[in-house]
Amino acid sequence: MDDHAAFLQRVEALRAGVDRRLAELAPAVGSAPDRLVEAVRYSLLAPGKRFRPMVTLLAAAELGAPEGAALDVACAFEMIHAASLILDDLPSMDDAGLRRGLPTIHRAFDEATAILAGVGLLNQAYVVIAADQGLPASLRAELAGRAAQAVGFSGLIAGQARDLFDREQLRDPAALERLNHEKTGVLIVAAAQGGALVAGASPAVVEAMGVFARHIGLAFQIRDDLIDAQGSVEAAGKDVGKDAAMATVASTLGLAGAGQAMEAHLAKASGALALAGCDGLLGRYVGELFARRKAAA
Amino acid sequence: MDDHAAFLQRVEALRAGVDRRLAELAPAVGSAPDRLVEAVRYSLLAPGKRFRPMVTLLAAAELGAPEGAALDVACAFEMIHAASLILDDLPSMDDAGLRRGLPTIHRAFDEATAILAGVGLLNQAYVVIAADQGLPASLRAELAGRAAQAVGFSGLIAGQARDLFDREQLRDPAALERLNHEKTGVLIVAAAQGGALVAGASPAVVEAMGVFARHIGLAFQIRDDLIDAQGSVEAAGKDVGKDAAMATVASTLGLAGAGQAMEAHLAKASGALALAGCDGLLGRYVGELFARRKAAA
Repeated sequence: MDDHAAFLQRVEALRAGVDRRLAELAPAVGSAPDRLVEAVRYSLLAPGKRFRPMVTLLAAAELGAPEGAALDVACAFEMIHAASLILDDLPSMDDAGLRRGLPTIHRAFDEATAILAGVGLLNQAYVVIAADQGLPASLRAELAGRAAQAVGFSGLIAGQARDLFDREQLRDPAALERLNHEKTGVLIVAAAQGGALVAGASPAVVEAMGVFARHIGLAFQIRDDLIDAQGSVEAAGKDVGKDAAMATVASTLGLAGAGQAMEAHLAKASGALALAGCDGLLGRYVGELFARRKAAA
Repeated sequence: MDDHAAFLQRVEALRAGVDRRLAELAPAVGSAPDRLVEAVRYSLLAPGKRFRPMVTLLAAAELGAPEGAALDVACAFEMIHAASLILDDLPSMDDAGLRRGLPTIHRAFDEATAILAGVGLLNQAYVVIAADQGLPASLRAELAGRAAQAVGFSGLIAGQARDLFDREQLRDPAALERLNHEKTGVLIVAAAQGGALVAGASPAVVEAMGVFARHIGLAFQIRDDLIDAQGSVEAAGKDVGKDAAMATVASTLGLAGAGQAMEAHLAKASGALALAGCDGLLGRYVGELFARRKAAA
């Protein structure tokens, strides 16, 4: 097996491990009202690339954490991500019909079930982090705090509120970048730094991982804007063209300018990753992810 | 000043302290999108008896915690409670118009804002617990875990789902009691045990506080059912008569039977409180609360 095949196999093994553990950490049939359990599992276990947990796991592995030590924390970040997708898609928010190639949860079930599943999944992340007996209590408290900061009034929730209420006023690139960081970056930062913390990394490495993740998050958001502007529903697995009336990096800078901005963020992300000593596995994983997407576009 | 006046003054001082601290722990104007901050503060800082934080504070005080040690944890429980009220009141859930004597948040603002405020407040509880530097990290991790268990798929969220989807099937008292425990009791249990844990109480005392809180929660829920069946909107400060078509303890056992069930729970709560050595301040506080309500009814 050549080096590239071995790399892909290792990445896929990690991803499959996340899927298996998510299935265990999700509420089991019979443990809560059936409809709620079904909705949570429908949403959380839908096929996905598991980007945030992969970042946690690859960072932890590369920085020397024992195998498996970061798995539950990684799954907690996927739970938070799944919760944010459910809530952002709601009829009163983005009113999305399609997510990960499937009907959104409020269409497959109903709005009340979607809200309870979303809130429940967010909350379950804290259940999982707090119960992770493989980690010292001080680390569990720190990880829960960082996750909560990423979700909260200066993170995902602020970003969604700004997106809903203030998007029309956002015309300059700096304001859009802040929005994109809140909507995407903060959770990737928490996921990357979470992996570093589980590995016992130094504050300088944790900091560098944050810089890496911030830029990756911004690059991701621009890529999503580009897919939305150019792409097809089939390729995206979710509704596209919905941002046409909204300011995005693509509409502000143009498609070519947005592509350049994305490349600049990727370069800064690489630099930070090298600084953190994480430019092996994790750098390659992120590089492949963007390369695949570019080839598909 | 007589003993009773001194008691009332002490209770009111604690309650006012909770209000002040909640105002500090809520997102500040300018720290997140204005509309979201306004909605969160509208909801969290609306006048309320602050029952859950009062239970935490009185339990902590009576079990010997240093003054103020439990204040932030107490406020975290009020945040979770406020979040659950916002979410339960939503149009897709109970579609309530009035709460704490004011228009519900989705009517005063809009549905998306209400959802983000509710999720944000729930999440803020974990921010607050994780950041409470006055407590050892191991205790912060334990408190976050217990709070998350109380909210999650075997707690408030399960209860709300059961209430929405299964209420028609709930005809026997045991099933109703489980529902009522999930909807109300679990969080009061976490609040009471949280106070005991901050005070460094023994496992036996923590356990007894849980028994106390479970029965107080059930008594509360029956009292709410009775207010709903008999009461006026003015006295309740929220919509009443909405449960007419639903099975409640009052509809299953009749008004007199429900009253007796409530008294039985109060007696068991008192017994557990005496066992825990918390029947001074906390016992008196709870006793007065129910006595006042009975006099008002």
